[in-house]
Amino acid sequence: MSYTVAIVGVTGAAGGEVLRILEQRQFPVKELRAFASARSAGTTVTFRGTKVTVQEAKPEGFTGADFVFFAAGGSTSKALAPEAARRGAVVIDKSSAWRMDPSVPLVIPEINAEDIRQHRGIISSPNCSTIVMLMAIAPLHHGNPIKRIIVDTYQSASGAGYKGIVELMQQARDVLDKKEPKHAVFPYTLAFNVVPQVEEFTPSGYTTEEQKMQDETRKILHLPGLPVSATCVRVPVPIGHSEAVHMEMTHPMTPQQARDVLAKAPGVVVEDDTSRKQYPLAMHAAGRDEVFVGRIRADVALENGISLWTVGDNLRKGAALNAVQIAEAVVAMQAFTAAAPNSSPTRR
Amino acid sequence: MSYTVAIVGVTGAAGGEVLRILEQRQFPVKELRAFASARSAGTTVTFRGTKVTVQEAKPEGFTGADFVFFAAGGSTSKALAPEAARRGAVVIDKSSAWRMDPSVPLVIPEINAEDIRQHRGIISSPNCSTIVMLMAIAPLHHGNPIKRIIVDTYQSASGAGYKGIVELMQQARDVLDKKEPKHAVFPYTLAFNVVPQVEEFTPSGYTTEEQKMQDETRKILHLPGLPVSATCVRVPVPIGHSEAVHMEMTHPMTPQQARDVLAKAPGVVVEDDTSRKQYPLAMHAAGRDEVFVGRIRADVALENGISLWTVGDNLRKGAALNAVQIAEAVVAMQAFTAAAPNSSPTRR
Repeated sequence: MSYTVAIVGVTGAAGGEVLRILEQRQFPVKELRAFASARSAGTTVTFRGTKVTVQEAKPEGFTGADFVFFAAGGSTSKALAPEAARRGAVVIDKSSAWRMDPSVPLVIPEINAEDIRQHRGIISSPNCSTIVMLMAIAPLHHGNPIKRIIVDTYQSASGAGYKGIVELMQQARDVLDKKEPKHAVFPYTLAFNVVPQVEEFTPSGYTTEEQKMQDETRKILHLPGLPVSATCVRVPVPIGHSEAVHMEMTHPMTPQQARDVLAKAPGVVVEDDTSRKQYPLAMHAAGRDEVFVGRIRADVALENGISLWTVGDNLRKGAALNAVQIAEAVVAMQAFTAAAPNSSPTRR
Repeated sequence: MSYTVAIVGVTGAAGGEVLRILEQRQFPVKELRAFASARSAGTTVTFRGTKVTVQEAKPEGFTGADFVFFAAGGSTSKALAPEAARRGAVVIDKSSAWRMDPSVPLVIPEINAEDIRQHRGIISSPNCSTIVMLMAIAPLHHGNPIKRIIVDTYQSASGAGYKGIVELMQQARDVLDKKEPKHAVFPYTLAFNVVPQVEEFTPSGYTTEEQKMQDETRKILHLPGLPVSATCVRVPVPIGHSEAVHMEMTHPMTPQQARDVLAKAPGVVVEDDTSRKQYPLAMHAAGRDEVFVGRIRADVALENGISLWTVGDNLRKGAALNAVQIAEAVVAMQAFTAAAPNSSPTRR
């Protein structure tokens, strides 16, 4: 079997990465359709050595597609994802538009692939910071339920797309050359600074990014009341989100027990030998598919506490790779058909 | 009254800052003595427009001094601070050598100046990360005792001295010029990366820096059992330590109540208006004497929880300024004489 696959937002950082990962993982693509905004229509992208002309994303373009990846903004997904689903495609949405919709599964395949069976045409891929954190902690949760999470992030410029990397690098050069750095993508100069704001503020004082880490973690772990508190911070790193995570577990757990569980977890690499200064680093994680975990130790301020440091490539596992893995899971589970609107949420 | 003041380590980042701050704050200096290692002996430093020749630090040099600031490494303090105290000087030590000695007060003047009265010749100034955090949270603690602290730091290169800044800037230039960056001060390349290691690892999995944040917080707040869990992370910022702090308080406290308390706290500036994207930033805090606090909000994962973001200049309030303020407090309290070795720890 092979499939007709469309990518909306193919000219952006996340969409371009979807294209490359479909190629690298040899996803069985029969036909590739490249969509973007009207502004980018007429340009080309290359897939398996063949040039594909980018077209403006319109509902008619989805007819006959098996998979449509949305890697554009939330408003594009809001408007067009239902059009694609209505035409029989399985939509895999990277935006935040549908993530908290109760009828839309929110999936990290290593963690909750089974939720895919409930889809009604749209499957959401989580926020990059949520994915990196959950890859590192869900394996622990499965044997020892998590009761509380406090997380502070060190998020890279590419979380704001390619333009974030360009702005960071230009700012760095300006600072070194004693010129006044300019900013447009980030709220302040990011080079040689850290900015405790990712996305916009909500009335609670948390940002939407911080709120997503709470809401999405609860949905993916099926724990609607789990306390999750996050501070999301932008750091002057081009690619790779790092996170300091503190957890209260239900039962005692030694750092070695945690390491043993994580060593067997799919998609996770334990880098945790402090005697050799071994721990995850953004500069090493960039370009890699796995999520890296280290600095695993007892959290001395929480009951049955575990602290750890995790790093993942926000453009790969944090975005495009997870989306492609969802498509692979749909194929493996043969879960192409949308669940009936009134289907029970129990597994069929 | 004016005083004979000596600085040990005057040619380093922290010692040079002590010199400038003594000048800026017009500390009543009658005679300034400049000390450093044998390597720097013979060079000069300028104090109030006059050149002072740097001498090798030796016990005899402390005779007749009223204050001796130690801004060299821990081994220098360990060897020479008792010599200075024995000769009747009040030693103010920036190193970690004496901080946890039960007979040595560990002081942030805005928080626990009264502890100065117990000194026996040596007074310690805390670790820079501890000072920044406690300036932001001790004022809250005084009306609503803190029960638990979780903190993740974003520490600048200058925490490792001037050479840390030089290494960061050279690395940044090398990366931009597509050259291989080198590292000697930091365990890995710091430019465009974050490194979850500040100082050395202990068998618990925490670093000495993280352990200091726990031990020193407990000592300064007089709470020997306070649970404090820290992850200390180096970020590519030249000056200014930022910290994400999560606290469980004894009683409920609204963010506005916390803001009101902090607005009146000496040495603290509240920068907390998310509607105008106002929050503390390392790039703004560098060179400033105050500690800045913002992003004050309910911590949704802790009982009676408060989260905040605090930033301070690690070379000023985090180091040299706090040391000079200790000297000012000694003068104001007329606490020159060492407490008797067997004096009771109650206030006289």
